[in-house]
Amino acid sequence: CGGGCGSGGPPTIGSVLVGTVKSYSAVKGFGFLVHPDISQDIFFQDIGIAMELRTSDLAGTAMSFELIRAADGKAQARALKPVPAGMGTSTPPSPGTMAMGMMGGGGCCGTHPGMMGKGMGMTGMGMGMGMGMGMGMGMMMMMGGKGMMPGMMPGMMPGKGKPVVRNHGVSGHRKSYALVWRVDMRDRYGITQVIFPKQGADEAGLKRYSESVNLGREFVVKVTGKVVERSNKNKQRDTGDIEVVADSLDVLNASQTPPFKIEDATDAQEETRMKYRYLDIRRNPLKEALLLRNKVTRIVRDHLNDLQFCEIETPVLIKSTPEGARDFVVPSRMNPGQFYALPQSPQTFKQLLMVGGMDRYFQIVKCFRDEELRADRQPEFTQIDCEMSFVSQEDILNVFEHMIKKLFKEVIGHEFPSFPRMEYSEAMDRFGIDKPDTRFDMELVDITGCSKGFSFKIFDDAEIVLGMCCKGLGEWSSKKIKDLEKKATGQEVGATAMVWMKYDKDGSFDCSAKKFFTETQYKAWVEKANVLPGGCVPGDLLVIIAGPKLKTQEAMGKFRHLMGTELGLRSKGFNALWVVNFPMLEWDDEAERFTAKHHPFTSPWTEDIEQMTSLDKKDQRLNDVRANAYDMVINGVEVGGGSIRIHNRELQAKVFEVLGFTKEEAQEQFGFLMGAFDYGAPPHGGLAFGLDRLCTILGGKTSIRDYIAFPKNNMGRDTMINSPSEITPVQLAELSIATAVKAKEASPAAPAPSGDYPAEKGVLRTS
Amino acid sequence: CGGGCGSGGPPTIGSVLVGTVKSYSAVKGFGFLVHPDISQDIFFQDIGIAMELRTSDLAGTAMSFELIRAADGKAQARALKPVPAGMGTSTPPSPGTMAMGMMGGGGCCGTHPGMMGKGMGMTGMGMGMGMGMGMGMGMMMMMGGKGMMPGMMPGMMPGKGKPVVRNHGVSGHRKSYALVWRVDMRDRYGITQVIFPKQGADEAGLKRYSESVNLGREFVVKVTGKVVERSNKNKQRDTGDIEVVADSLDVLNASQTPPFKIEDATDAQEETRMKYRYLDIRRNPLKEALLLRNKVTRIVRDHLNDLQFCEIETPVLIKSTPEGARDFVVPSRMNPGQFYALPQSPQTFKQLLMVGGMDRYFQIVKCFRDEELRADRQPEFTQIDCEMSFVSQEDILNVFEHMIKKLFKEVIGHEFPSFPRMEYSEAMDRFGIDKPDTRFDMELVDITGCSKGFSFKIFDDAEIVLGMCCKGLGEWSSKKIKDLEKKATGQEVGATAMVWMKYDKDGSFDCSAKKFFTETQYKAWVEKANVLPGGCVPGDLLVIIAGPKLKTQEAMGKFRHLMGTELGLRSKGFNALWVVNFPMLEWDDEAERFTAKHHPFTSPWTEDIEQMTSLDKKDQRLNDVRANAYDMVINGVEVGGGSIRIHNRELQAKVFEVLGFTKEEAQEQFGFLMGAFDYGAPPHGGLAFGLDRLCTILGGKTSIRDYIAFPKNNMGRDTMINSPSEITPVQLAELSIATAVKAKEASPAAPAPSGDYPAEKGVLRTS
Repeated sequence: CGGGCGSGGPPTIGSVLVGTVKSYSAVKGFGFLVHPDISQDIFFQDIGIAMELRTSDLAGTAMSFELIRAADGKAQARALKPVPAGMGTSTPPSPGTMAMGMMGGGGCCGTHPGMMGKGMGMTGMGMGMGMGMGMGMGMMMMMGGKGMMPGMMPGMMPGKGKPVVRNHGVSGHRKSYALVWRVDMRDRYGITQVIFPKQGADEAGLKRYSESVNLGREFVVKVTGKVVERSNKNKQRDTGDIEVVADSLDVLNASQTPPFKIEDATDAQEETRMKYRYLDIRRNPLKEALLLRNKVTRIVRDHLNDLQFCEIETPVLIKSTPEGARDFVVPSRMNPGQFYALPQSPQTFKQLLMVGGMDRYFQIVKCFRDEELRADRQPEFTQIDCEMSFVSQEDILNVFEHMIKKLFKEVIGHEFPSFPRMEYSEAMDRFGIDKPDTRFDMELVDITGCSKGFSFKIFDDAEIVLGMCCKGLGEWSSKKIKDLEKKATGQEVGATAMVWMKYDKDGSFDCSAKKFFTETQYKAWVEKANVLPGGCVPGDLLVIIAGPKLKTQEAMGKFRHLMGTELGLRSKGFNALWVVNFPMLEWDDEAERFTAKHHPFTSPWTEDIEQMTSLDKKDQRLNDVRANAYDMVINGVEVGGGSIRIHNRELQAKVFEVLGFTKEEAQEQFGFLMGAFDYGAPPHGGLAFGLDRLCTILGGKTSIRDYIAFPKNNMGRDTMINSPSEITPVQLAELSIATAVKAKEASPAAPAPSGDYPAEKGVLRTS
Repeated sequence: CGGGCGSGGPPTIGSVLVGTVKSYSAVKGFGFLVHPDISQDIFFQDIGIAMELRTSDLAGTAMSFELIRAADGKAQARALKPVPAGMGTSTPPSPGTMAMGMMGGGGCCGTHPGMMGKGMGMTGMGMGMGMGMGMGMGMMMMMGGKGMMPGMMPGMMPGKGKPVVRNHGVSGHRKSYALVWRVDMRDRYGITQVIFPKQGADEAGLKRYSESVNLGREFVVKVTGKVVERSNKNKQRDTGDIEVVADSLDVLNASQTPPFKIEDATDAQEETRMKYRYLDIRRNPLKEALLLRNKVTRIVRDHLNDLQFCEIETPVLIKSTPEGARDFVVPSRMNPGQFYALPQSPQTFKQLLMVGGMDRYFQIVKCFRDEELRADRQPEFTQIDCEMSFVSQEDILNVFEHMIKKLFKEVIGHEFPSFPRMEYSEAMDRFGIDKPDTRFDMELVDITGCSKGFSFKIFDDAEIVLGMCCKGLGEWSSKKIKDLEKKATGQEVGATAMVWMKYDKDGSFDCSAKKFFTETQYKAWVEKANVLPGGCVPGDLLVIIAGPKLKTQEAMGKFRHLMGTELGLRSKGFNALWVVNFPMLEWDDEAERFTAKHHPFTSPWTEDIEQMTSLDKKDQRLNDVRANAYDMVINGVEVGGGSIRIHNRELQAKVFEVLGFTKEEAQEQFGFLMGAFDYGAPPHGGLAFGLDRLCTILGGKTSIRDYIAFPKNNMGRDTMINSPSEITPVQLAELSIATAVKAKEASPAAPAPSGDYPAEKGVLRTS
């Protein structure tokens, strides 16, 4: 063993070894090392080597290096340091001591070659800690006689003790506690056991022993010591093969007893965890969520930059659009009585960038909506916002499907097949929702044709009769089926009534409306169901609801999702698809006018434009105008969406007209955009992904709050910093505003839109 | 020539060539190609090759590829495509036609191999366009018989015409215009000349010719055609060797005549350019500024991520701190009468992340200050915000000096030597400012000791007498020197009086206070000046001001910068340094108390802490407490700054006390932070860079507005979208606020702090 664990066998990841440079090219920025115990050449990159070495001819040079696992799972080398004469591969350091490869990092290693090796009496080792889906590179925690810091970096000063946030592990008592005190030390990169021996200790050692016994949970300490092989290895832990025998201990900061235990699983209320978010972040699940998020943005940025997308920051202080979803506003001190708004999306700015010739734009950007909050909504959220010029829908779908595939592969190793494309109308017909969870079947069965005319008024009066086959529920008791009916007619689903038809194991039928129907109808229904995936076989239950088409589809869609959750069909794997060609317009009963289903900058399909010539707001043909819009749906969640945009003034003006804007209103609110179209706007389109949501799906969780470092609660409050809060009269006066708080009326805030917050649909309210 | 320019000689950057894969490793993610005309192996990376090819054994395969220039200046290959049989290196396409290497990009090339080569009758070529400091990779604009798009990407659909924003070049008339119409087409990647021949054209060609004559400036068109070598090459233009003979022309969008010409140099007022920012962005200087900014953030992110820094988003809706610089606030609808504030920096959140164990944080993040605006200030600006645990000042300086060096090298090829470190007190003594421009000498000469006691009251009464030697100004006329005096006593410098001493070429002296002084004193002054770099020799002019120490140093510092500008000493090159160990506290005459010079979370040097035991606010010893703080200064601009933070409650509480907070105020405003310190906060520190300013310096400009896509004017207005603007009564009511605009009083807004906006000092007002 050329260093590392001190035991025999091949070198382990995290070891610091000494090898010989086989080749290196400063131009290419990488090279290879050889090591007697490793059969393959070991790749290294510039980043792993000090700046001043990068121009030299290194071939043949003996170098200490740290063995890491690269993203592809293969061994690589990093933290290369030249080894002084006599320290080459032929004379590796003896087990138990080692070259301190990481000390000082690249930037200063050249000036401290003498610090490596036995001469300094240092001991220590690198411990590879699997980071799971965290950082791509296995990160090191290192301890040594002179001390050092995790992953020391170019230019960093050596000679500091490696201090780590430590967690005093009191889980279980062992006999040996009388002779030795064991302490678990935690930092971002993992947990390491440190021991303070009593038996055989000198005076300083005895002092350290008693100090260590008094260490409390969450104390911050600096420890130096020797790394030794553990006699009782802990296979549960990446660092379980070793422990550190301390030879110094400094308490850098004491800690009160935290309000909850800093462990992976916690029974603390979310309220407590939010208030002490800085403690919650010490827990692995949150820490890993933040690391995953960083990895996601890094991959996205690299990918898009490599495709010549240019990240451009758009303003945060913009203009309020009364027509839109509710804006957060910011009073302007310099312009009394006037307000900025925080962007619901950078929509118009990215379009102006296209007009400006920046043909591929992206931005990972905070957006804001002052709407009611839920588990997957926050007042501030983050979008991966993208736009391209000279593209068709097909181009956008291909480019971003590729990006998402790459993301899932690199972050969690999941390989997607090609994403199916589904027309909006097909999604509604088959799943009753525009973001179907296609991980399970249970498609909607249209039995309208074979269920009318049997004097059953509910069906006879209905525009559509929809069934859905629940696998195996034919076995359910009457009581459970009764509960099912309650669910169907409850608030969450909203059906007026539910009929069921039981297909018994023995092949017989039963039905809650058996007064009206016979086996002939049952068999016809089953036949319809059997055309669809999954079908309907003995033992299944067909649930049926009826009514107006859209309302009934939507109710069944919700029922399907509910059942999918309840029957545990939604938990495994990933299913992705594109839903395309949404309706352009949506009738708003309350406002008695059409609104834009996506947003008013979305282009209709060229062949549908002429259907918009009619300005009779009730013209049925307006309902049929298709938008050139698309959503990416994964596991029933809309992770992204976008559209091809309008790029000329005439069409944009016509769309505003259809939406009920007067010419003056359109000019006042969006005149700058239509003005820009006068100067040669290229055809363009794009989309936006919800980053919080994407990370949540990648991490296999359901609450976006787990992927946001400092989220707000469902009243929009940050309970940790106690915000929002009152401001001073001086501030109010400077801003030319006054508060006008009325005695709290039970004013129900405007109902939140029914869907999740749409990634890119923040410009105009869609309901 | 294996493709490309159609002429002889070695292949040029941007050519599409056909070569053979020498080696490729899917694990390593790169490989090498060989080409008969290129002596070295040509490196390529995964990104340049279709996904489905990455696992194959490619060695020996003939591939078409595009020759690009990598960041290191060497040739690389990208857009690799397998070449059908008979298209290998042994049979390169004949000049004038070529393999369409970029068509379809990686994702779909495998399915369209037949689309490449002569079989399709396509012609076209890649044109290398030097991007200067723009994107790292030379980007291609391509045109072909089937059409394509710039840098088509994986998964993108082929078969689309390559449309580009075009600029009808009407500069100059040539005879040939009767026979051919020439049109310059512009896109993000450059300008290409397209020709529409009349002579010998068929009917369609004649139609195209007359259409092309009618094209106006800024029309957006789609053109396909053949690339040919130009007879009259334009050496000024990267694409000047070729032109495109159009065989189709579609007008995608017409344009009105723009309000100013879209050319590199413009005489348009900034007001007009701001209003039509989307047109201004089409101009090269702005386009390149945005590309540079993208490059800067990319390098910074890569660098910090490679060092295991984790980018974490902190909230934008936070809490207002009345003590701070003026906050922008956001009324909370859900919490009537309460307000969020927009962050002046993520200071407290990044500290909480350190408490949370995320030991290396960074974020490129928007920050906000509601202060008066200038050329280098915007209400919203962007920081590169960084924090680390377990570090000393030395660590921070080393890590971030390394980062900035790397940035300057990679973006503009500038190599910095090590940054000198200068104590704050030394900076004040030598340059009269805490951010000295060290590109020129003109250091302050302390002549107090040899200028008092000569009955010259101004000097005798002064705490300090400071000279500054202006090289060569001894030659200046009396009138010019008179003007100099006016400058010294003007508002910008603010000295009460200026004395001058002229050291004539002939060795004689003259002085504006010659009634009091003789050659003995003049020689003593010169002697003092000659100790400093530059010295004072015959022909020079010594300007002298006197008064209280700090005020006089500051005045002379401003005078020095003014003269540096005026004498043209500040224009060339880059000088960087660290200024360290600022005073912790600063006496505020108006508030009659100390304020924090950096911010109240900055740690004093340990050895100075005991000087803070006195709470007598006028105790002189408080002035001498040094902060563990540091600024990075480049060319006299503070590009970044930070400090080691306080990490325990006691010291933090004491600092708040010294700053005049009551216990209750401290608890109310920063209780969450001090509370976090109770649970084991590690020692930590960090800094922040002003991204806008950093880009401005890298780009060699002076106004940060040139590096912001959509900046605001000096009244905080976005004149393009006309924001801020009034909001509706409904919005005001929902937010429980009312506007309270008074008849405009001539209320002078609080004077802006004298310095530039500090990158990280946004938490408490410092003056």
